[in-house]
Amino acid sequence: MPTGISQKKGYSARMNAIPHACLIIIGNEILSGRTRDTNLGWLAEQLNSSGVRMYEARVIPDVEEIIIATVNACRARFDYVFTTGGIGPTHDDITSAAIAKAFGVPLILHPEAKRLLQQHYTAGDLNEARLKMAYIPEGASLIANPVSSAPGFQIGNVFVMAGVPRIMQAMFDDIRPRLRGGSQTHTVTLHTNLAEGTYAARLSEIQTAFPDIEIGSYPHFRQGRVSASLVARGTDIAQLAQVEERLDEMIAELGGRRLSDSDIA
Amino acid sequence: MPTGISQKKGYSARMNAIPHACLIIIGNEILSGRTRDTNLGWLAEQLNSSGVRMYEARVIPDVEEIIIATVNACRARFDYVFTTGGIGPTHDDITSAAIAKAFGVPLILHPEAKRLLQQHYTAGDLNEARLKMAYIPEGASLIANPVSSAPGFQIGNVFVMAGVPRIMQAMFDDIRPRLRGGSQTHTVTLHTNLAEGTYAARLSEIQTAFPDIEIGSYPHFRQGRVSASLVARGTDIAQLAQVEERLDEMIAELGGRRLSDSDIA
Repeated sequence: MPTGISQKKGYSARMNAIPHACLIIIGNEILSGRTRDTNLGWLAEQLNSSGVRMYEARVIPDVEEIIIATVNACRARFDYVFTTGGIGPTHDDITSAAIAKAFGVPLILHPEAKRLLQQHYTAGDLNEARLKMAYIPEGASLIANPVSSAPGFQIGNVFVMAGVPRIMQAMFDDIRPRLRGGSQTHTVTLHTNLAEGTYAARLSEIQTAFPDIEIGSYPHFRQGRVSASLVARGTDIAQLAQVEERLDEMIAELGGRRLSDSDIA
Repeated sequence: MPTGISQKKGYSARMNAIPHACLIIIGNEILSGRTRDTNLGWLAEQLNSSGVRMYEARVIPDVEEIIIATVNACRARFDYVFTTGGIGPTHDDITSAAIAKAFGVPLILHPEAKRLLQQHYTAGDLNEARLKMAYIPEGASLIANPVSSAPGFQIGNVFVMAGVPRIMQAMFDDIRPRLRGGSQTHTVTLHTNLAEGTYAARLSEIQTAFPDIEIGSYPHFRQGRVSASLVARGTDIAQLAQVEERLDEMIAELGGRRLSDSDIA
C-alpha cells in the first residue's frame, strides 16, 4: 500500500492511523449538471464505517488522457482510490481501457468475467459490445456485480465500480472485506440559533484545546433566520464528549440555545 | 488568461473556442457525506449559458497545504477556476488565507470590504471574527454578496465564492459579466426502452460520423425495467438535429421506442 498523504507533516499521529481514500467520478453527465452525483456521500459514510477516510474527490470527463493522468496522480498519493462510471458497453465507456494504460498493462478478455456475462445474457444477446464489459486490465481481480452481472475490478489500490448508484452500492459489498481500515471517525452535531460570528472566537479556543478533534461550523440561512451547525469529528469518543460539553457551555454562555434537527430542516 | 487544457491535442478546433473551467469545492462536510453538494450542477449550467465549459471539479478538505496545491495546479491548467466554501468567520474558514499564499501575496484588510461589513453589522456586532471576512489577498477585486454582505473575491483567473448555495448563486451574478465565453453548448436528450448493449455498435457508428458532437449513453435500472438516456451535446444546432434524427432511426430500426421524461422518472 502506498504511504501517501497520511504520512505527510501537519497531521497528528491519530490521523496517520486512518487510511486516506480518493474518489474519481468519471462522467460528462456530472460535469454538465445533467446528473447529480450521490455516490460521494454514500461512499464516504461506508468508508468511514470501515475506518477509511474520504480525503478528496475529483469529477473528470470521459477523456482517456485525463482518466490516465488522474488515476496515476491519485493512486500514488492515496491509500485507496475508487472510480465510478464508464464501464458499460457503449463507445463512451472507456474507463477500463484507460486504467489498463495507467498501469501499463494490456486489457485482456477475463475468462471469469466472460463466464458471468454468458450466464446473464442468452447467447444471441451477448454481442461484441456487451462482451467489451469482460475486458479487464491484466492482473486485476474482479468485483462482483449482483445487479447486472458485468463486474468491476481491483488493480493495485484502485477499485473500479459502475456509476449507477444501485450497482455501485452492490459492488461495494464485495470491496468492503478487502479494505484495511484504521479507527472509525465519530461525529457529534449540535445546531444552534446563534450566528457564526458571535461564537467564532470561543469556538477557536475550543478547537485549540482539542487538536485531535476536527470542529467545523456551518451557517444556515433559512427563511431569513440565521442558524448554524457545529460538527465535531474524531476517533476518541471520550474527547468528543468533552467537546460536546464545551460547545454546550459556549452556546449557553452566549445566550443561545441548541436547536433540534427539525428546527433547522 | 492561461491557455490551459483547451489548447492540448486531441480536442477539435470547435472545442478550442470554449474556455474550460474547474470548480474546487472546499469543505470537510462534503467529503464526510454530511452535506451533499448542489453547487457543481448549478454552476455547470450557468457557465454553459455563458459559453464556458465545466471541465473538472475537485472536492478537497479544509487543509491549507492542500488548498494551495490544488488552486495552483488548477489555475495553471484551466481558463477559469471557481472555489466554494471556507470564507466565513470561524477558525475552519481558511480559504482566503490559503489563496493569498497560493498567489504569493499578503492578505490585507480591504477598505471596501470593511465598509460593506460596517454597513451590514451594528458597531458592536462587527467583532474580530467577522472582520476576518474583510481580509482579501492583495490585488484581488471583490465579488458582491447581496445576501449576507461579506464579499467573495477574484484574483487572476480564480473566483472565490461562499459555499452556501443561495449566497454562491447571488455572487455568480457579479461574476457572469467578467467571463469571456465561447460558443454555448446545446443538448438533445432521448430516452428509450432499449438496453444499452442492443444499440452500442450502432451508436458508435453515429458518434464516428459526428466527431464534433459528444454522445453519451446512460442506463437506468428502475423497478427492474431497463431503459437508457442518449445525450448529444455540441455547439452546432444543425448537426445536433441530424444526430437526433439518426438516433431516432436507430431506435426504430432496433424495434425500440422513445420514452418521455415521465416514463423514466
